[in-house]
Amino acid sequence: MTQRPVTAAVLIIGNEILSGRTQDANLAHLAKTLNHWGLRLREARIVADVEAEIVAAVNALRSGYDYLFTTGGIGPTHDDITAASIATAFGLPLIEHPEALALLEAYYPPGELNAARRRMARVPQGAGLIDNPISKAPGFAIGNVLVLAGVPAIMRAQLDNARSLVTGGAPMLSHTVSVLVGEGRIADLFEALQAAHPGVEMGSYPFWRQNRLGTALVLRGDDDGALQRAAAALDRALGAAGIAVDQGERGA
Amino acid sequence: MTQRPVTAAVLIIGNEILSGRTQDANLAHLAKTLNHWGLRLREARIVADVEAEIVAAVNALRSGYDYLFTTGGIGPTHDDITAASIATAFGLPLIEHPEALALLEAYYPPGELNAARRRMARVPQGAGLIDNPISKAPGFAIGNVLVLAGVPAIMRAQLDNARSLVTGGAPMLSHTVSVLVGEGRIADLFEALQAAHPGVEMGSYPFWRQNRLGTALVLRGDDDGALQRAAAALDRALGAAGIAVDQGERGA
Repeated sequence: MTQRPVTAAVLIIGNEILSGRTQDANLAHLAKTLNHWGLRLREARIVADVEAEIVAAVNALRSGYDYLFTTGGIGPTHDDITAASIATAFGLPLIEHPEALALLEAYYPPGELNAARRRMARVPQGAGLIDNPISKAPGFAIGNVLVLAGVPAIMRAQLDNARSLVTGGAPMLSHTVSVLVGEGRIADLFEALQAAHPGVEMGSYPFWRQNRLGTALVLRGDDDGALQRAAAALDRALGAAGIAVDQGERGA
Repeated sequence: MTQRPVTAAVLIIGNEILSGRTQDANLAHLAKTLNHWGLRLREARIVADVEAEIVAAVNALRSGYDYLFTTGGIGPTHDDITAASIATAFGLPLIEHPEALALLEAYYPPGELNAARRRMARVPQGAGLIDNPISKAPGFAIGNVLVLAGVPAIMRAQLDNARSLVTGGAPMLSHTVSVLVGEGRIADLFEALQAAHPGVEMGSYPFWRQNRLGTALVLRGDDDGALQRAAAALDRALGAAGIAVDQGERGA
């Protein structure tokens, strides 16, 4: 019996991603980490630093999935509007969190905690803090929404510190087999395999290596037995079709 | 007088991005290219290979923005469901495009255009093809939606070939100034600058270089005169605050 999957979405907030100035470096890390925690990342959105757009996306995603992780927009400048937007999305007042303020007061030299930096202590009323060991300004959690920094090193540290706030289900397991033929050669057998193993998610991804076209066949599922049965059936089907497996790229 | 901005959204289709297996390599390129074309990329979404989710995202984004660019899911395997999903989103039949079929027939050696590969000739009825100089299977355009491959080299080539299908507005211009102080030091003057120049979009992005914290101040707008006036005002404000500009990182 399979339990209901626990789902998650990611919302990346920032003009710099949409302008192409910055290559997002957070989504792949979030995807892998959430997977380890037993969450299924089902959707990601990237929106600009515009309150109405952040509010709309937060409300769509927090109601559509079990957890929502946001990155970006929690710094000290005028374009950092994530905390205020989340408060608006929840219909909550934005307050200065005493513990967050204490963290900032202890971190900055006397006289350097100006009004802008002090904005980083503001959270929606009732939010819990998520520790930031790097530059102290915390992330926060409210309801099923976890709000993290956009700077990758800080985001990663905050995400580690948010582990206890999340209750995941069974982690997704995966099994990858690479073959040195194009997708078109394995499409029929792979489709038949998918039809015979509906509980295992199957995807194929073309690659080029040393001027040869190949395909990675990825099987994913939370039931190890079902995954192993599908993997064995894939081996048999490839063998029957005379398609060799690239042993260097095989494995979980 | 400023014309109405021409807007765009991107939809990235693929389980492999949401599982963390693959780092997306298309969004930043799309963002930069669309910007050159005078389109404002306002939102991006990443969804799984699930028809209902693709249809919902396509319909939300094609009605919300002037153009929608999708990447991924147009290969030959069972998990490549983008063409069928776009047809469903538009309420159109999925047909085999004669010209696309002819391209595939010419590309594959005799006998190798199997049923799976032939699926790559299917498009929503009425779609126009977008050339793929690399592996021939074309992208397509229907209404305001442009459908591109997920493999970065193919996506880029198809995007170049889609240029004539897009009518952009004024390109966004940008001016970046880097300072070797943290965001908290410049937040007040930057907010005042934004208030005085509402037609210019201003963002600040922290960085570390040689163990020093710095901030990139980015001004963006489609009116060169307004941008230059804001840039000059920023120089004056930084000078008045005694904050030196890092000359190596200055420029458009």
